[in-house]
Amino acid sequence: MRESAAVPVIIDCDPGHDDALALLLAVGDPRLRLLGVTTVAGNQTLDKTTRNALRILALAGAADVPVAAGCDRPLVGDLVVAADIHGASGLDGPDLDVPVAEAGRVHGVELMRRLIAGSAEPVTLIATGPLTNVALLLRGHPEVVPRLRRIVFMGGSTERGNTTPYGEFNIVTDPEAADIVLRSGVPATMIGLNVTHLALATDQIIAEFRGLDTRLGAVCADLMTFFAGTYRRVFGFAHPPVHDPIAVAAVIDPSILRTVAAPVAVELTGTHTRGATVVDLHSRTAAAPNADVAVGIDVDAFWRLLMAAVRRAGGG
Amino acid sequence: MRESAAVPVIIDCDPGHDDALALLLAVGDPRLRLLGVTTVAGNQTLDKTTRNALRILALAGAADVPVAAGCDRPLVGDLVVAADIHGASGLDGPDLDVPVAEAGRVHGVELMRRLIAGSAEPVTLIATGPLTNVALLLRGHPEVVPRLRRIVFMGGSTERGNTTPYGEFNIVTDPEAADIVLRSGVPATMIGLNVTHLALATDQIIAEFRGLDTRLGAVCADLMTFFAGTYRRVFGFAHPPVHDPIAVAAVIDPSILRTVAAPVAVELTGTHTRGATVVDLHSRTAAAPNADVAVGIDVDAFWRLLMAAVRRAGGG
Amino acid sequence: MRESAAVPVIIDCDPGHDDALALLLAVGDPRLRLLGVTTVAGNQTLDKTTRNALRILALAGAADVPVAAGCDRPLVGDLVVAADIHGASGLDGPDLDVPVAEAGRVHGVELMRRLIAGSAEPVTLIATGPLTNVALLLRGHPEVVPRLRRIVFMGGSTERGNTTPYGEFNIVTDPEAADIVLRSGVPATMIGLNVTHLALATDQIIAEFRGLDTRLGAVCADLMTFFAGTYRRVFGFAHPPVHDPIAVAAVIDPSILRTVAAPVAVELTGTHTRGATVVDLHSRTAAAPNADVAVGIDVDAFWRLLMAAVRRAGGG
Amino acid sequence: MRESAAVPVIIDCDPGHDDALALLLAVGDPRLRLLGVTTVAGNQTLDKTTRNALRILALAGAADVPVAAGCDRPLVGDLVVAADIHGASGLDGPDLDVPVAEAGRVHGVELMRRLIAGSAEPVTLIATGPLTNVALLLRGHPEVVPRLRRIVFMGGSTERGNTTPYGEFNIVTDPEAADIVLRSGVPATMIGLNVTHLALATDQIIAEFRGLDTRLGAVCADLMTFFAGTYRRVFGFAHPPVHDPIAVAAVIDPSILRTVAAPVAVELTGTHTRGATVVDLHSRTAAAPNADVAVGIDVDAFWRLLMAAVRRAGGG
Repeated sequence: MRESAAVPVIIDCDPGHDDALALLLAVGDPRLRLLGVTTVAGNQTLDKTTRNALRILALAGAADVPVAAGCDRPLVGDLVVAADIHGASGLDGPDLDVPVAEAGRVHGVELMRRLIAGSAEPVTLIATGPLTNVALLLRGHPEVVPRLRRIVFMGGSTERGNTTPYGEFNIVTDPEAADIVLRSGVPATMIGLNVTHLALATDQIIAEFRGLDTRLGAVCADLMTFFAGTYRRVFGFAHPPVHDPIAVAAVIDPSILRTVAAPVAVELTGTHTRGATVVDLHSRTAAAPNADVAVGIDVDAFWRLLMAAVRRAGGG
Repeated sequence: MRESAAVPVIIDCDPGHDDALALLLAVGDPRLRLLGVTTVAGNQTLDKTTRNALRILALAGAADVPVAAGCDRPLVGDLVVAADIHGASGLDGPDLDVPVAEAGRVHGVELMRRLIAGSAEPVTLIATGPLTNVALLLRGHPEVVPRLRRIVFMGGSTERGNTTPYGEFNIVTDPEAADIVLRSGVPATMIGLNVTHLALATDQIIAEFRGLDTRLGAVCADLMTFFAGTYRRVFGFAHPPVHDPIAVAAVIDPSILRTVAAPVAVELTGTHTRGATVVDLHSRTAAAPNADVAVGIDVDAFWRLLMAAVRRAGGG
Repeated sequence: MRESAAVPVIIDCDPGHDDALALLLAVGDPRLRLLGVTTVAGNQTLDKTTRNALRILALAGAADVPVAAGCDRPLVGDLVVAADIHGASGLDGPDLDVPVAEAGRVHGVELMRRLIAGSAEPVTLIATGPLTNVALLLRGHPEVVPRLRRIVFMGGSTERGNTTPYGEFNIVTDPEAADIVLRSGVPATMIGLNVTHLALATDQIIAEFRGLDTRLGAVCADLMTFFAGTYRRVFGFAHPPVHDPIAVAAVIDPSILRTVAAPVAVELTGTHTRGATVVDLHSRTAAAPNADVAVGIDVDAFWRLLMAAVRRAGGG
Repeated sequence: MRESAAVPVIIDCDPGHDDALALLLAVGDPRLRLLGVTTVAGNQTLDKTTRNALRILALAGAADVPVAAGCDRPLVGDLVVAADIHGASGLDGPDLDVPVAEAGRVHGVELMRRLIAGSAEPVTLIATGPLTNVALLLRGHPEVVPRLRRIVFMGGSTERGNTTPYGEFNIVTDPEAADIVLRSGVPATMIGLNVTHLALATDQIIAEFRGLDTRLGAVCADLMTFFAGTYRRVFGFAHPPVHDPIAVAAVIDPSILRTVAAPVAVELTGTHTRGATVVDLHSRTAAAPNADVAVGIDVDAFWRLLMAAVRRAGGG
């Protein structure tokens, strides 16, 4: 299934309901070649996010993809997980009882380094959690940085946040890491809440997942049903947004996003705004663009991609 | 024209194109009694904003309303005016050649104090510029604070800003003053960009102003035409928003706004977000509500109010 | 006793043990003319600091000096008093049972304004508490600012602090007020802990006070004995420093201090350093000097001044 | 010369005049076993500090010690070198023309990791530059952290700074890295300016260096002569302080320092104080001690250690 023309990617994640869908999309779409998965503390503690990544890969028949656990806390400050959103396991909702492989003994950052160094082609790094691992890779292994094609991350917002009024969870969790990534010079695509809040798992979407009539389809439906509950309770959303797979979709088919090149600063010192991504859309500052910022999405095309991938992976 | 049942108000402003409309609305609507006007540095320097206030009042036949100049700079930090938006005079565009009275010799804060102390009824304070004067009043004259019915201010945003990505001009200009107002315990209504950006002076609105066939109507049309140019050039808006008169309209007829009681913190320490109004709409923090925050507006009703007032004032 | 050649001064204070000595020095030294005393919340709440000022003046036979209560909290943020240092009353230790006048009904800032406006000569403002009142005077009454000869304040440090590692109590209590004072353009003298920690009330000093054999001498001895206890317990000092009267002494006889003109910035945004006075003694920044900063003191001359004044006041 | 009972150390440095003496002390004292040297950008750019480390080791007959270049800039923000203090080369003054080895191809952080992993005994890490490399090691290779005996770093101050009024160069250059080190749980000793400013290279010390009558002695004398010039010009010091070798001396003979266990916070958000080490010597905060902070030094013992080592290394 993994043809040689496929784009080599690494996913750095903290599953997490929407991270789980991101992994399924990367496994199920033939246009990507998933070199490895690294995990980071974020939605839940590192042991849980690692176990969750292993479970999803096993369910998707991709237990051979190497997995390594990375950082167990942000660069600066203490870890605050999102148990209110993702539950005690980080992936509450579905039955995920499946035999899982062990994660590799190597550190996540070291796995990233090896995979990038060993790839014939430049690698695209997809990050769907706090950017701690990615920042350490960029600073600690500058020799592989030129071998990165791009970093596509779900995080931040051009508008309001979710963890704080202006702060999105991934960036609030490790603002210094995000700052490092955005100043690194590696081409970056930022996919923030302003776009991900447009991709909602409606009842019809959930029904489609269930209608796939596969174990993976049922898992996706259960994940989204649980997620719908927390988003309704915490944010009053009618349907839950599906953040992370959009970052994968953007690599598969960049045309699903509309982006603008803009300066993005990470607020590091704000009392109420630490971790806000401050995107200068109107050139109000003298800063140069340092990211392609998603400002629009073709929601239908996105769901078609994701549904097709889950169907394909579920038949593996 | 000023009947005794009218609500006594003071307007603290920094005209400014939209401040000018705010003054006209206050003068022209019989449901308000404009006790006085105080000025503050903001859109332009204090001498210019004071002169502009005097001009507008003179044009509106309200030269008897007492005017006093207040603070010539924010509490902390240096003044940065908005000449890119309001021009060199602060009120570029129309011909404003009119004989004006002198401003009073008393300081703006002292005029506010006297007017409040001398009013039989509690006074509503409408602020359409940086909150420097209001903050000094609250801190320096605590004895009159219980005689304030409410402070209604145009400033901040629940979404993006205009001066910086998350900062609106009035609050960015004097964040500490806004903090003082929002912590003062005086009932406050915040009317931010999230609402004012919905009230746009379309070509039709400008035509209506001109169609009034009065000098004031022409002035309003010219003001909005100039404003349209700067908003198009700086922000790419098709039509300019009309921020400040909404604060006056909200006192005349509170039903034109939809508000929610919410905690509003002013970011004082952010490197990229200083002056952002951080509004916790989803109870993500433990803070108690300290303002009624406008989240919706009946745009048609607003324009009807404003147009009627300009018509009435223009005939004075 | 108050001769016309004497320097007109206002003392803004928050007594406080060392503020009490500052008042006695101002009352007792013929080279000063104490126009009035204003109080501010700081060492204790405003009602207590006001009552303490009235008591000390009454004990010193200066009940005719006008007193007015100013601000009951800092410009920004909440008041944190220093009960651990000054006790529950703000002036624990001596018997201060004395009939006291009422404070004036006018606000402290307004009293300052009137006294300055009414003085034939420029007035020297001596501040020994948080600078809240002084900042409001400067911002709210710019017309009297040119009538100030100088502001001499006890506060800050060129070295370590006392309330936090780098923050001194008066400045930490209201950093924005200190920033306003230091940017105001009024000539300022800063007397910080680096100097006041050199003026210690040794056992011999306390014995001298007691040896005056007056009620005021006993009060001073009791004040210093209490202060010695808290400084020993909290800071491990062998003898307590006597901060505030040095600011008064510096006006009586500037030669007791060695000062350097230096740039002083107030840290407003630090997480651990808010309220630090950042004094650039080595021109490491491009900032221009904005204060004369005390860097040395003639301790013996200071104690002679103070002892003489207490002797004189006590015989009044 | 390197006996097995010697303490295994790694030096992470940015030579730099005083770093050079630190290297010589580590090479020349038989009680240490110098496993390797890693370099970091700081006093000068990474290429220069690396070249300088190689030169000093070559001059000291220690060209076999592995050297690797680490990070070329701080974790967050831009690099600002100290050319005003250390000259264009980072080691201006002496003739350092000597054939040097190449630095290893491996990254400095990876060299540290390997040396620590390969050491039979726990390793002591001595850091005399910005803590960028050390922070990356702690976060990126948590598996070797338990194999560190202690981190001894020159940096910070309990009193004033040198780069800013309260900020010392190494910490100001990379405050986040210092924060990571101080929160890491690894036992840490902080040797700040409050102590290093007591160890001055007087004319007599410089004469002693020259009197050794070795090339290294002459190099040391020339280094200190240049350093004396910059410290006289920039800070008005009569004699230059010798910061970095004290960190090495403290490992050789801990009794030369007096330390107290105290909470040390690094100021990350201050406008004027970023990078200050905020040491709570009087338990004014609730924080627990996280470092042994040097508060006194036996200067004579220190100079004896250093002189003996330079004599010994110079005869190698």
